[in-house]
Amino acid sequence: MILVLSDATVKRAAERGGNVRQQLARYEILSADAINVLDGGWRRIVSEIGVQFAKAEAVELFRKAGQIVGGDVVRLDPEFVLEQVAKAPKEFDVQARNPANSVHIGGDHMVFGGVYGCPFIREGDVRIDATMDDFRRLTMLAQVFPELDSAGGVICEPNDAPLDSRHLDMIYALQTLTDKIYMGNVVSGPNAADTVRMTEILFGGREIIERTPATISLINCNSPLRWDDRMLDAQFEYNRANQPVVLTPFLLMGAMSPVSVPAALAQQLAEALSGIALAQLIRPGCPVIFGSFLSNIDMQSGSPSFGTPESATGLLCTGQLARHFGLPFRTGGGLTSSQAADAQAGYEALMTLLPTFLAGANWVMHAAGWLAGGLVSCYEKFIVDVELLRMLRVQFTPLEIDEASLAFDAHLEVGHGGHFLGAQHTMERFRECFYRPLLSSTQNFERWIRGGAKDAAARATEIYQKKLQEYEPPPIDDAVRAELGDFVTRRRAELGD
Amino acid sequence: MILVLSDATVKRAAERGGNVRQQLARYEILSADAINVLDGGWRRIVSEIGVQFAKAEAVELFRKAGQIVGGDVVRLDPEFVLEQVAKAPKEFDVQARNPANSVHIGGDHMVFGGVYGCPFIREGDVRIDATMDDFRRLTMLAQVFPELDSAGGVICEPNDAPLDSRHLDMIYALQTLTDKIYMGNVVSGPNAADTVRMTEILFGGREIIERTPATISLINCNSPLRWDDRMLDAQFEYNRANQPVVLTPFLLMGAMSPVSVPAALAQQLAEALSGIALAQLIRPGCPVIFGSFLSNIDMQSGSPSFGTPESATGLLCTGQLARHFGLPFRTGGGLTSSQAADAQAGYEALMTLLPTFLAGANWVMHAAGWLAGGLVSCYEKFIVDVELLRMLRVQFTPLEIDEASLAFDAHLEVGHGGHFLGAQHTMERFRECFYRPLLSSTQNFERWIRGGAKDAAARATEIYQKKLQEYEPPPIDDAVRAELGDFVTRRRAELGD
Repeated sequence: MILVLSDATVKRAAERGGNVRQQLARYEILSADAINVLDGGWRRIVSEIGVQFAKAEAVELFRKAGQIVGGDVVRLDPEFVLEQVAKAPKEFDVQARNPANSVHIGGDHMVFGGVYGCPFIREGDVRIDATMDDFRRLTMLAQVFPELDSAGGVICEPNDAPLDSRHLDMIYALQTLTDKIYMGNVVSGPNAADTVRMTEILFGGREIIERTPATISLINCNSPLRWDDRMLDAQFEYNRANQPVVLTPFLLMGAMSPVSVPAALAQQLAEALSGIALAQLIRPGCPVIFGSFLSNIDMQSGSPSFGTPESATGLLCTGQLARHFGLPFRTGGGLTSSQAADAQAGYEALMTLLPTFLAGANWVMHAAGWLAGGLVSCYEKFIVDVELLRMLRVQFTPLEIDEASLAFDAHLEVGHGGHFLGAQHTMERFRECFYRPLLSSTQNFERWIRGGAKDAAARATEIYQKKLQEYEPPPIDDAVRAELGDFVTRRRAELGD
Repeated sequence: MILVLSDATVKRAAERGGNVRQQLARYEILSADAINVLDGGWRRIVSEIGVQFAKAEAVELFRKAGQIVGGDVVRLDPEFVLEQVAKAPKEFDVQARNPANSVHIGGDHMVFGGVYGCPFIREGDVRIDATMDDFRRLTMLAQVFPELDSAGGVICEPNDAPLDSRHLDMIYALQTLTDKIYMGNVVSGPNAADTVRMTEILFGGREIIERTPATISLINCNSPLRWDDRMLDAQFEYNRANQPVVLTPFLLMGAMSPVSVPAALAQQLAEALSGIALAQLIRPGCPVIFGSFLSNIDMQSGSPSFGTPESATGLLCTGQLARHFGLPFRTGGGLTSSQAADAQAGYEALMTLLPTFLAGANWVMHAAGWLAGGLVSCYEKFIVDVELLRMLRVQFTPLEIDEASLAFDAHLEVGHGGHFLGAQHTMERFRECFYRPLLSSTQNFERWIRGGAKDAAARATEIYQKKLQEYEPPPIDDAVRAELGDFVTRRRAELGD
């Protein structure tokens, strides 16, 4: 089933340079036998061990549907799970308030959002607690770069905003400082309800957002095999409003799953599919995304490791498995364990992002700004990641190979041992023929020294500062802005902040 | 044809951790139609424009074989070229003086050598002219790390050694400071003859190295479509001695080839296949490698760009084309334009090295130490690249997926919402279950600050310095060493240095 697949949406997005389509091959490494083993794995987990749902309403839905309930643990019939999963749309649109920024999720489309959930900020050599001002500046950066389809949701945790009402400040900032899609708050059911209400205000009513979803939310599993009450409360709000949720097993192998990639993959299937089954019980046909957040801990230190070979392998397998079940999927990002925007940050980010493209992930969180295992939103790393996204978009664009592309006449013109710098073929194409970097430098040594010997991180500082100066707020209807502001003010008072 | 495929060699190499086999799928992006177009492209170039060979003996070989000669330009019948190419072995061994370090080139094997040809050195923040002392230290580093199968050849250009005889110093250092395979000198025919003679001394005679090659040499095309005299002189020496040559079009699109990847690929085929045809005329059946060095210039500055999307695309296509013609191939490395071992160096190196693995390149030059467009051998970058090689070896190792790998018992032990840190399955595997980094840090912020807030480059400095201290020269027979030394002394005197 394909929900509201809009060619016009795709065309508009392509015009602004967004909504990447990965039209090359998927890199697949699982054999049919391997998939069968993994398929047996999740079936055994859900049916023999079961999944814990820490919300009575969820358990009751499963009980009514004939599943075996013991306390808050539900033992699931795998065939029942698959029947529910089949109700989920294979592809769907998420609308932005600027229609040119609406996105399509599923198929060969890739949609990118900023880093999510970081309590700290790094800017240059300084790491501090993130503030609402950082939240706004990072959101503005996400608006400026067409490589991002969304600022994401919690692009940093605004520690200086009142705890009970900061979700209102974040949603308001995402709605007004960008005209791209945004993620909903999932801290509690009421927070989710506030997100839905503010989305209704922005888009003109419940019916409009139920017809085409307008926000997307991350529902994490408390792995292994437990969905927590507050996340479930949020999921119920979003599913009821037909807003997509990303049902994501949170797997750091060694802590939340066994120390084996196949075991983590089977567990991931058990968790994600059980969450998707619940979504379809809440509202049949509601849009969902098969989520994956799969890496490992460093068994020496106990710290999480990112950009690891195991995570890259898991990522490729995840894509293949999601396709096997006919589901749009989320994985990847510019992940790294590094504390600085250094060589490690560069290679670990690409060690995740390149497989993200090879797998053709449909919804990519943490695509820009992630540092230090996700504890830090880093301005410089944001620019590094945008450069990677730009490069990968070019790399994954199919070559056009025909007779004309061989430029035989250029060879006739240049001859043996000559050069093509002044050839007619070159002169006609030199402006557009190759990727033009944002951050990377090809300066020779002398010129680089004269320019201050700035490394990539130093140049990234200059780029994001300049981009923030260039930022212009996207236009918004005054009455809508006022209504959103009134809502925030009223709800903040109700919440006692 | 498979030349001296030795299971014992492979086994020994696997034991030392070397001779990587890429047993996952190749990532292929060319359709059969696209290959047909490119196939037509090289055929038209070699038959209508022809290839220039700046050596009378080469031209004469082609003339005698019935090809159309005009001056030093040979117009080639594509079918004749393919007949010659078919004489080349599909796979072959190259022996090292330590048999455990011998390598197999072709099939799914990947063999890695250090950076090659850099006039400068970077160590920390200082860039200086490279010296013979640097040459020795970098060679020692290549010996220490099992990720490298070879120091390569000119791991840096020893500017303080006498110009006419420095090839003797380099070969002697490679032969004595390492017991791995090494590359031959190609500056001139006599230099190549000296390399062959020294190889005969090291291995015990001409017959032994003709039976199993013992050195490998890089023959670059002066692209477009011209093979220069001194390179050809060297090629003749090596082919006659049955030592493999890597026939490499040197293509920076925009300078040495048109500004189109398909055009560069067709030209690359024309050049590499013509050089391989010559090799088979010199000595039918001699081992060759289809070479590729394909990137582009920055059309704004005219500087070469490395780690670009276009070079990654070209690399993947090169692998597919080499397999189409049944040839072992060389491409890839840890390439970057960056002047420092920074984030750009990290991501550009991986932007080349990951596709190198996806393509399954058989012989990988510049696999460690490349910086600044190949003008600089950098100690810190060497360590960054070794880390990447280590990670990629793990990533491209096939997963074993069976019932046991699913660790079902661990789930029974841990239950819902628990953790696997102390599970029996974890305790039995925690030492070996995940990749253990050399350079990458997973330290949390507080610990990282206490340790001096060292970025990856600073840590790399400590690592290479420690590794150099740990270096132990591999044992060598005193008489052989003396004979090599005598040869160097005598030849140096003959050369007037």
